[in-house]
Amino acid sequence: MFAHNKRLQYTVRVSECNPGLANLMLEQFGGPQGELAAACRYFTQGLAEDDPGRKDMLLDIATEELSHLEVIGTIVAMLNKGAKGKLAEAAEETAELYRSITGAGNDSHLTQVLYGGGPALVNSGGAPWHAGYIDSIGEPTADLRSNIAAEARAKIIYERLINLTDDAGVKNALQFLMTREISHQQSFEKALYAITPNFPPGKLPGDPHFANVYFNMSQGEGDMRGSWNGDGHFTYVSERKEQCAVDGGDGQPRVALDPDEETALEDLAARTASDPDADPTTGAELGAETGR
Amino acid sequence: MFAHNKRLQYTVRVSECNPGLANLMLEQFGGPQGELAAACRYFTQGLAEDDPGRKDMLLDIATEELSHLEVIGTIVAMLNKGAKGKLAEAAEETAELYRSITGAGNDSHLTQVLYGGGPALVNSGGAPWHAGYIDSIGEPTADLRSNIAAEARAKIIYERLINLTDDAGVKNALQFLMTREISHQQSFEKALYAITPNFPPGKLPGDPHFANVYFNMSQGEGDMRGSWNGDGHFTYVSERKEQCAVDGGDGQPRVALDPDEETALEDLAARTASDPDADPTTGAELGAETGR
Amino acid sequence: MFAHNKRLQYTVRVSECNPGLANLMLEQFGGPQGELAAACRYFTQGLAEDDPGRKDMLLDIATEELSHLEVIGTIVAMLNKGAKGKLAEAAEETAELYRSITGAGNDSHLTQVLYGGGPALVNSGGAPWHAGYIDSIGEPTADLRSNIAAEARAKIIYERLINLTDDAGVKNALQFLMTREISHQQSFEKALYAITPNFPPGKLPGDPHFANVYFNMSQGEGDMRGSWNGDGHFTYVSERKEQCAVDGGDGQPRVALDPDEETALEDLAARTASDPDADPTTGAELGAETGR
Amino acid sequence: MFAHNKRLQYTVRVSECNPGLANLMLEQFGGPQGELAAACRYFTQGLAEDDPGRKDMLLDIATEELSHLEVIGTIVAMLNKGAKGKLAEAAEETAELYRSITGAGNDSHLTQVLYGGGPALVNSGGAPWHAGYIDSIGEPTADLRSNIAAEARAKIIYERLINLTDDAGVKNALQFLMTREISHQQSFEKALYAITPNFPPGKLPGDPHFANVYFNMSQGEGDMRGSWNGDGHFTYVSERKEQCAVDGGDGQPRVALDPDEETALEDLAARTASDPDADPTTGAELGAETGR
Amino acid sequence: MFAHNKRLQYTVRVSECNPGLANLMLEQFGGPQGELAAACRYFTQGLAEDDPGRKDMLLDIATEELSHLEVIGTIVAMLNKGAKGKLAEAAEETAELYRSITGAGNDSHLTQVLYGGGPALVNSGGAPWHAGYIDSIGEPTADLRSNIAAEARAKIIYERLINLTDDAGVKNALQFLMTREISHQQSFEKALYAITPNFPPGKLPGDPHFANVYFNMSQGEGDMRGSWNGDGHFTYVSERKEQCAVDGGDGQPRVALDPDEETALEDLAARTASDPDADPTTGAELGAETGR
Amino acid sequence: MFAHNKRLQYTVRVSECNPGLANLMLEQFGGPQGELAAACRYFTQGLAEDDPGRKDMLLDIATEELSHLEVIGTIVAMLNKGAKGKLAEAAEETAELYRSITGAGNDSHLTQVLYGGGPALVNSGGAPWHAGYIDSIGEPTADLRSNIAAEARAKIIYERLINLTDDAGVKNALQFLMTREISHQQSFEKALYAITPNFPPGKLPGDPHFANVYFNMSQGEGDMRGSWNGDGHFTYVSERKEQCAVDGGDGQPRVALDPDEETALEDLAARTASDPDADPTTGAELGAETGR
Repeated sequence: MFAHNKRLQYTVRVSECNPGLANLMLEQFGGPQGELAAACRYFTQGLAEDDPGRKDMLLDIATEELSHLEVIGTIVAMLNKGAKGKLAEAAEETAELYRSITGAGNDSHLTQVLYGGGPALVNSGGAPWHAGYIDSIGEPTADLRSNIAAEARAKIIYERLINLTDDAGVKNALQFLMTREISHQQSFEKALYAITPNFPPGKLPGDPHFANVYFNMSQGEGDMRGSWNGDGHFTYVSERKEQCAVDGGDGQPRVALDPDEETALEDLAARTASDPDADPTTGAELGAETGR
Repeated sequence: MFAHNKRLQYTVRVSECNPGLANLMLEQFGGPQGELAAACRYFTQGLAEDDPGRKDMLLDIATEELSHLEVIGTIVAMLNKGAKGKLAEAAEETAELYRSITGAGNDSHLTQVLYGGGPALVNSGGAPWHAGYIDSIGEPTADLRSNIAAEARAKIIYERLINLTDDAGVKNALQFLMTREISHQQSFEKALYAITPNFPPGKLPGDPHFANVYFNMSQGEGDMRGSWNGDGHFTYVSERKEQCAVDGGDGQPRVALDPDEETALEDLAARTASDPDADPTTGAELGAETGR
Repeated sequence: MFAHNKRLQYTVRVSECNPGLANLMLEQFGGPQGELAAACRYFTQGLAEDDPGRKDMLLDIATEELSHLEVIGTIVAMLNKGAKGKLAEAAEETAELYRSITGAGNDSHLTQVLYGGGPALVNSGGAPWHAGYIDSIGEPTADLRSNIAAEARAKIIYERLINLTDDAGVKNALQFLMTREISHQQSFEKALYAITPNFPPGKLPGDPHFANVYFNMSQGEGDMRGSWNGDGHFTYVSERKEQCAVDGGDGQPRVALDPDEETALEDLAARTASDPDADPTTGAELGAETGR
Repeated sequence: MFAHNKRLQYTVRVSECNPGLANLMLEQFGGPQGELAAACRYFTQGLAEDDPGRKDMLLDIATEELSHLEVIGTIVAMLNKGAKGKLAEAAEETAELYRSITGAGNDSHLTQVLYGGGPALVNSGGAPWHAGYIDSIGEPTADLRSNIAAEARAKIIYERLINLTDDAGVKNALQFLMTREISHQQSFEKALYAITPNFPPGKLPGDPHFANVYFNMSQGEGDMRGSWNGDGHFTYVSERKEQCAVDGGDGQPRVALDPDEETALEDLAARTASDPDADPTTGAELGAETGR
Repeated sequence: MFAHNKRLQYTVRVSECNPGLANLMLEQFGGPQGELAAACRYFTQGLAEDDPGRKDMLLDIATEELSHLEVIGTIVAMLNKGAKGKLAEAAEETAELYRSITGAGNDSHLTQVLYGGGPALVNSGGAPWHAGYIDSIGEPTADLRSNIAAEARAKIIYERLINLTDDAGVKNALQFLMTREISHQQSFEKALYAITPNFPPGKLPGDPHFANVYFNMSQGEGDMRGSWNGDGHFTYVSERKEQCAVDGGDGQPRVALDPDEETALEDLAARTASDPDADPTTGAELGAETGR
Repeated sequence: MFAHNKRLQYTVRVSECNPGLANLMLEQFGGPQGELAAACRYFTQGLAEDDPGRKDMLLDIATEELSHLEVIGTIVAMLNKGAKGKLAEAAEETAELYRSITGAGNDSHLTQVLYGGGPALVNSGGAPWHAGYIDSIGEPTADLRSNIAAEARAKIIYERLINLTDDAGVKNALQFLMTREISHQQSFEKALYAITPNFPPGKLPGDPHFANVYFNMSQGEGDMRGSWNGDGHFTYVSERKEQCAVDGGDGQPRVALDPDEETALEDLAARTASDPDADPTTGAELGAETGR
């Protein structure tokens, strides 16, 4: 069960209203790397988890991310507070209101007109948050890797937002939030390596014929070798012929059909055959003719 | 520039048509962990990348994933080939066709009615592929972690699909594809650690006051300690008061308003004030009354 | 700030695993009328709200809805627990696993293959939750009406789910959740009527010429009168001519163009004019000709 | 059956082209509170409705909303007419065209480049309209409440748009459209209360133990009491322990497993156990090391 | 302005309720090739169109498509009528209701639980209709081609649905709807060819160096020649070298940077350089080690 | 199998960085008419196609479109290169960075903050690419028409982008890409007419009673006649009565119900009946009362 305390996890102090900045902040409220995504990611994993250590950790961090969602959403609400009042009360000249709605140079018009200045669960481009942002699949060594990556991404988005604001109170809160992503990443790393072995993920081993092969599929000036495709770990295959049909077959697909299927397909083929010998006049040729 | 060779990277041999199985296979064709997501993920990263080693690797693997997309899509096409002919030609009794469309117990009806049995870029539940599945953010230490996680997830989905089919040809192809995910994960791991340092991701360091704190936000029976929240690496904070307003403030948000903003907000507040002392009759009470 | 207690708000007791039923339950986990939608709806409204009474109420109820999300998600996790283990460990014959994945007659295959049996934030049809489900617009008399409606809808979905299960523990938990929607609806009703006046919503009055007119736009057998279009409250307009151009104009749109705009439009019109006097041969006519 | 009269329901007079304003108007054309959403909402409800009075009313209002869709779409078309011609004919200098496309400060570039200035079914942020905006569930006392709320929201969005334009013709048309939302809300209210009882919605009563309880989930400075949680109607529960496991159980979930399920889960648990006693070296620690 | 007549354009007679069939019918109600897509496609084109002939035609056909939407939606409503009553009234045993909800073998459970049996604007897989289905771009020779294609697709989906039902009334109505698509396609063809020239679409001519070249990008067994790539109309380029950098350049991208940009990029490159000479230990290697 | 050559199909030369222009270019990278849509469209059709000529052509063109995706994505990467470095390194003053992020007047802020300047698979408004853009249905005469239309649309979007840039290198590359759309359209036209007959699409003929009827559904000033509705090809029906119930029935829907269904529906009707004779007080009336 969740409980709520009216004090924020980190005090939000905003020095002046700024709907354009508010709009950028939405990236971490309702964007793919934002706090709702984080909270939902860990919470839903936690519900499904049976391992007691991971379950506890996931619920701890999910709950903290909800508290972060509150912090970043509160920043948005503060930055939009002035604009919200003016639009609702029509407290400015029409032309001035119009300018303030469209002048931020980003999608803050949407935040004002559609959401009345409230923090909406959209990214900074106005796209509604959706659960496709969560990539959990219910296997811990995969999900923990996903969590590690998610924390790394969130850290970077916070870093970019910090680079874009001079408001000291906003900057401090963002730095706190950014730092917590670093901390969470460390917890997920520990939890991943507390499972042994954790690579390859899952239960089935790979096929040894293909597990350490590197196919040099992109060729030309710029080809490089390094540990990621080096002879120490990989067989490096550049010859195009050896990249095809690596099972030793002919590379052609086939399927066994029963007689009814075969007949239906033959009928379909005959009915829709394209005639390679014809040179039909086409609609484009009709349409290219000029003159009225 | 891309070129195409008509031989598949792995020969597809399907023993009999099976639209229900085809539908499950769509998970790796147009699903979030599927091959289009992988190809687009690495290809778009590769276009933006300036580091020569990573650029080459990303394009190599992107191109291979496109070739995998072809393999898995070809499996879908083979499994659906019989159903496609029968529906197009109305080659069965209506009732029989209806049964075959709805009898697979999953969303294969959609594949037949809407897509005519062709491999559509949807997941096994019929949801169209979308680029929100790609979580690249243009920072290599984050993106490589995302790639590692993506390969781990794809490996697991293949493992589940392998567990669900007895068709030897399909199983072999899936094992090849699964194994390649393991190989790619290794390359991305090497590429990540070829950047030093790579943690924390990005340029800004974390705030040392908060980087090694673990907030025990979820409490009760089931609390556990381990390396992910242990004293060796983390300060463990369980006291609720110490989890709030960790900046030392009062945890209340504020923003400086200019006088016009203030006036507009006061007007808005007055106009929409809720009266805590009234006990108004409501629509629900009107609606709860019975009798005509 | 949020805190979490490891005890559920309502104890979940499930009598046997049932992935098909789990899948139906997802409707209230990640569906449009579900608990995540409710929690996000009230939480984001609460962040933006300045009225102290409404803010407090919205945060109270948002927090409770998160606790309900945990209850319904836990039901899903319990119902899927057996299937999760079997698929991960390949603990059954392939054919048996395949049957169990596709035999539920709904989208539980997706829950298994893609999400590994964990409670995913999707509806019972597999569509990911998205913030478009939240219709808050930052105006209290509108948002409270939206909340009232949302609670009414959620109540009905729970009622339908209750009608579909015989598992006593599941039924009890659903009844609790359903009842809480009734209670929340009452709170939102009180809060709406604690604002006076609250109709029409917003600040601008309607135009008295059109505020009490009922246009009988659909005509024929089945036309009816009642209080919703009755003479006591509405002027009933059936004459088609009086339904058009009700401003007294000619009903034709116009816009003033500057000379450059005019010229460009004339060029465009000339270039793309359709000739009403020609009877051109078309692609369809080419295509309708038979014979090879 | 629908018929169309070429005269608009309200004459549209636009004083000058303005793509930026056009873009804002899209909010009520293809946005969530817009006229397509309204028309589809009532039309689909009307098709399913068996009650003669409601069916007639729903079809009347749906048809009127389609006519409003035409009015607002026509406003967009007029506001964009000049820009449409110039871009199609390349009738301005490139730099000037570029400025006009990107200078509106909102998403009007999208309307121009992608839609050629035509009224597209997108909101003012460019997000395509989707049927998730419609929250009908096929139960009249819920759907009518949803309709009431939808009309209230639409009224507010029109009010905001009116506050943002000085063009008298546009303003007049918007005022007409806004007023009609007020009128429709009144009809839906009448129709709701013409059903007795209508609260609680649906057939199943709530559980009296929980129907009049208010859980004070959010606590701290700012707690308030009012009719929405007052003693006159609600039992107010603040004690955290009484908020958990309100059924009197232990708040722990459980499910009965059959032996095969149990075995598979034990195998899974053992294979993926996290070791709380280990302190493994992690990828983050590898990555944090500097120096080459 | 739209008006509505309570008689359908085509009388709907359904011989018995069948939620599974209803669900398939949704494909043409809220699916990509369905009637809402058609109506919205032509209606929005019509609003933007200035050519009098095309405008009239688009509004005629849009209005008819709305009337078709009513026909297909009514079919869905009739097919679901029985199920709707039973679920709302809990008029069957729980187990029986559960079977009827999940037994159709497609997504009809969603239609019942979420939409209460009403015709929802979703496709047969439950995906909500969205305006991305409409591909209008505001250029008549492109849009008319899009309309021709849309009619062709809709015709085929109706054909498939006809092949799947034995209910004579449903079949007749579908045949009417299918036939109207054929008729509309003919009108759009005429309208396209009434513009001369209409190929290539738009105003800018193609570059003659590249307008009649066919690049044989996919090579191997299966290469074919026909009028689509034949010597009569195309220069056929198979040599891989002649397919690259066809402008005669080196095929390498470049951009002029100003000094500040250059410096920032160099800093970024140095900070995130991957070292091709190192062979770092990776997380995968840590994770692959066994033993505790 | 795909292979990649590091040389582009067309050399990209960009004269200076310009994130605002980059953002417009995204329309053809990740937009509905862009190159990913084209590549996926033809590739998935090709996988399902059994006709050798069409299969070969589809794979040729799909592969070329992938190469075009690379060209347009590379343009985006070059145009964003400077901005990418500056934001990552915080190489400018905060205020300057903020201005550059929000000053382009379109959605380039999103490209910078979320994607770090890399080419993301979104349209110019930031909406992620999705497979709903692909309208293939697995029937060649429909799909080829869809392809023809898609090429026409893509040609026009390129034409608009060409009109918006003065950068010679970008312009040249766009002209090449635009020209290739013209060429591909020609190939698809040839392939369509190489199937005889190809109209009407599919196997079932239309009903001759309705195949050549034109319903004049939109009436009033502006009605026009031309070949698209002319007497040479169509019976023109203007009388409203003859547009309804064209099957000769009464235009009223019906369905046969079994007794249980009938009973449940009667119960439902009684429970939710709206009383046309009552004039109930409503929530709106309560809310309209002023005074406290």
